[in-house]
Amino acid sequence: MSESDIQIEERFLSDWSGLKIGRPCEVHRPRTTEEVSELVRRCRDEGLSITVQGGMTGVAGGAVPSEGDVVINLERMNAIEDVDALEGVMQVQAGATLQQVQEAATAAGWMFAVDLGARGSCHIGGNAATNAGGIRVIRYGTMRDSVLGVEAVLPDGSVVSSLTRLVKNSTGFDPRFLFVGTEGTLGIITRLTLRLHPPMGQAAAAWVVASEFEALPRLLRSLKRTLGSALCAFEFMSGRYVRTACRLTGAKAPVQVEGAWHVLIEAAGTAGQPMEEALHEALTHAIETGELDDCAVAASEAHREAFWRIREAIPEVLTHLKPAATLDIGLPWARTGEYLKAVDAELHARLPEAEHLFLGHLGDNNLHLISGPVDEAGVHVVDEIAYRALRGCGGTVSAEHGVGRLKKAYLSVSRSPGEIELMRRLKQALDPTSVLNPGRIID
Amino acid sequence: MSESDIQIEERFLSDWSGLKIGRPCEVHRPRTTEEVSELVRRCRDEGLSITVQGGMTGVAGGAVPSEGDVVINLERMNAIEDVDALEGVMQVQAGATLQQVQEAATAAGWMFAVDLGARGSCHIGGNAATNAGGIRVIRYGTMRDSVLGVEAVLPDGSVVSSLTRLVKNSTGFDPRFLFVGTEGTLGIITRLTLRLHPPMGQAAAAWVVASEFEALPRLLRSLKRTLGSALCAFEFMSGRYVRTACRLTGAKAPVQVEGAWHVLIEAAGTAGQPMEEALHEALTHAIETGELDDCAVAASEAHREAFWRIREAIPEVLTHLKPAATLDIGLPWARTGEYLKAVDAELHARLPEAEHLFLGHLGDNNLHLISGPVDEAGVHVVDEIAYRALRGCGGTVSAEHGVGRLKKAYLSVSRSPGEIELMRRLKQALDPTSVLNPGRIID
Repeated sequence: MSESDIQIEERFLSDWSGLKIGRPCEVHRPRTTEEVSELVRRCRDEGLSITVQGGMTGVAGGAVPSEGDVVINLERMNAIEDVDALEGVMQVQAGATLQQVQEAATAAGWMFAVDLGARGSCHIGGNAATNAGGIRVIRYGTMRDSVLGVEAVLPDGSVVSSLTRLVKNSTGFDPRFLFVGTEGTLGIITRLTLRLHPPMGQAAAAWVVASEFEALPRLLRSLKRTLGSALCAFEFMSGRYVRTACRLTGAKAPVQVEGAWHVLIEAAGTAGQPMEEALHEALTHAIETGELDDCAVAASEAHREAFWRIREAIPEVLTHLKPAATLDIGLPWARTGEYLKAVDAELHARLPEAEHLFLGHLGDNNLHLISGPVDEAGVHVVDEIAYRALRGCGGTVSAEHGVGRLKKAYLSVSRSPGEIELMRRLKQALDPTSVLNPGRIID
Repeated sequence: MSESDIQIEERFLSDWSGLKIGRPCEVHRPRTTEEVSELVRRCRDEGLSITVQGGMTGVAGGAVPSEGDVVINLERMNAIEDVDALEGVMQVQAGATLQQVQEAATAAGWMFAVDLGARGSCHIGGNAATNAGGIRVIRYGTMRDSVLGVEAVLPDGSVVSSLTRLVKNSTGFDPRFLFVGTEGTLGIITRLTLRLHPPMGQAAAAWVVASEFEALPRLLRSLKRTLGSALCAFEFMSGRYVRTACRLTGAKAPVQVEGAWHVLIEAAGTAGQPMEEALHEALTHAIETGELDDCAVAASEAHREAFWRIREAIPEVLTHLKPAATLDIGLPWARTGEYLKAVDAELHARLPEAEHLFLGHLGDNNLHLISGPVDEAGVHVVDEIAYRALRGCGGTVSAEHGVGRLKKAYLSVSRSPGEIELMRRLKQALDPTSVLNPGRIID
């Protein structure tokens, strides 16, 4: 393995992840499914462990090899193999980047709906393996909802071709769901058929502020009714996050209120359909009922971009608060307000020197926490506080980042004993000697 | 088993299904998951086979017991256990009817999106087990897209509780997908958490006619762009189906054209949003480009209902053509036109005395065929013609009805050898002695 590989590996791990990066015994970049199949078969026969790598942008340590692993990196299997421009269906190899997929869809007059910051580096196969979420889940769902079919190499080297492209196919077990979201522990995804969507129209954006978190789910419920599926973003941020982000980026908060909770809201219709008026009307009602303290609608595309600049200041925030703990929690709307209150209070009591910033995608039940600067012990305090409060809430320790190596210890917060036992049985049935991505999700 | 049970069983099987209905040794109607678990455990220990029954409205023979089976019917587990009216999430027992679920959602100010003709009898657990489609898939997806979590009893009697209600949960294998669509072969679904949607607005309807099938996918592609997710029905019918349906019901075709292909189109927005104008505009363009022969927009709710009366005349058509063969095929848009032409020609050549009527949900890749009257040999001719033409088309022998017992022989038309082998391995891993629904999907 070259030095540059090691560097790529390292860049996504926080200082305190505690993960030891092993030196692989072999690194392969196969060009065909058959090569992947042969590699896997040989590793199984020789008792070697495989680490599967996509674009290595994950934050759960899934792509980090153990000492002596065989690394299989899919980056050379990056072809856009077919685009059906009539129906809006695409077949790709797993190593294509998300951006390649998006651009090929656009070139054919369609849109690929999954989008996230790492689009230029992350692989579509990795997006599928981790069931990536991103910024449009409220409207288009997660990666799972954009995958129509899959080809994968099983831990014994056999190939399962399930490259169907049908919306409906009720003929027994659907292999997609064995591989999407299982982070390469049950098979290596080599090809995908993807569902495309018609291009979205220009988005209208608004920024609202509320004193009480409880106003947010009620607002979201109301906007789902008035805007329907035109609602394409409902990104909440704590006032502390907004103030830190504005300070670090030089941006100005769109609303001059020291509000506790800010939300960036977007609505987009079909291509050419203006949405400003509909969004304005939908928000007017909420302001009249006294739920919101203030509201600003972006008057131009530049305004809209300025709103997003604040929401997307996470790299600057992470650099400023380094070393930071970051969490990716999920929980029901009705439990989110009280959870935030309790966790925020405990974090400030136990780590008073650090900043604790919340933001998330409420429509996806997803809450991110950034705490920093914290030392290694502090990271464990954050984990402990956040995950303990999560028990009994019907929540998850990972909404969209995956379990990988880093969240394995907390799996039981999200999953019942029966679920964990079932995962073990599936792993045992398909990978009895644990050839593929051992040490991820479960042991 | 009482006589009435046998009668219920029989009503959904065509005269020529060739299925022998066995007499069960025991029929149970458990009230709790624990009872189901104990029953399954005992059957496994005693080497008995279980037939799982929901509302018994399936058309693939899945609920038909073999001689000596233990029948487990879920009808007494029919509670709506919880409705979260804020977020739009519901927890139900598997034996609740689809209509119960729909009504409970409506009472809470929400809508349950899956809908189909058997709503009053079919169970929500059966809908999940067969991944039911229905009339709103183009907008809301199949049953799979409305299931957030599941509780199921495995073939060894253990209970897997995965009643999550989160939109995103990236913590490993998602048990939903082991049970949704696998027709009770890997577990008995006992509870579900369901996603609800905001109520739909009043639909606007149109009826269009085209000479060439190829105009239909182009029209659908165009409507997806102009109407977006407001498009909620695109139901095509062959001219022969429309003429037969009109003759049998006394209905008048909305458009006086002897067109080869008719389409019932619906658009609906959010509650209170009128859609007539948007639908009219969207269709005007298609007419101007010469793709359509004619078009009528429903001027009133009575008109709209009259349109649907024709589309929903299937019971009358089936009675008239009895005994009839019915098929539930799926295939890509681009292959549908040539497939229809080839199959229609061959059916008329080989079964000239019968009527052969086509209709389907193009947005779901779904095509239904009704051929009748045909004798038992004729049914096999229809199957042979329709499924032979399907090979190599990327199609499926069942888009929404399931495989059950009746389509098992044709599984290889839809599924690759690798997929079938994978299904066998999963069945073997979870149900090595084939206790649950043996003889369904695969042997």
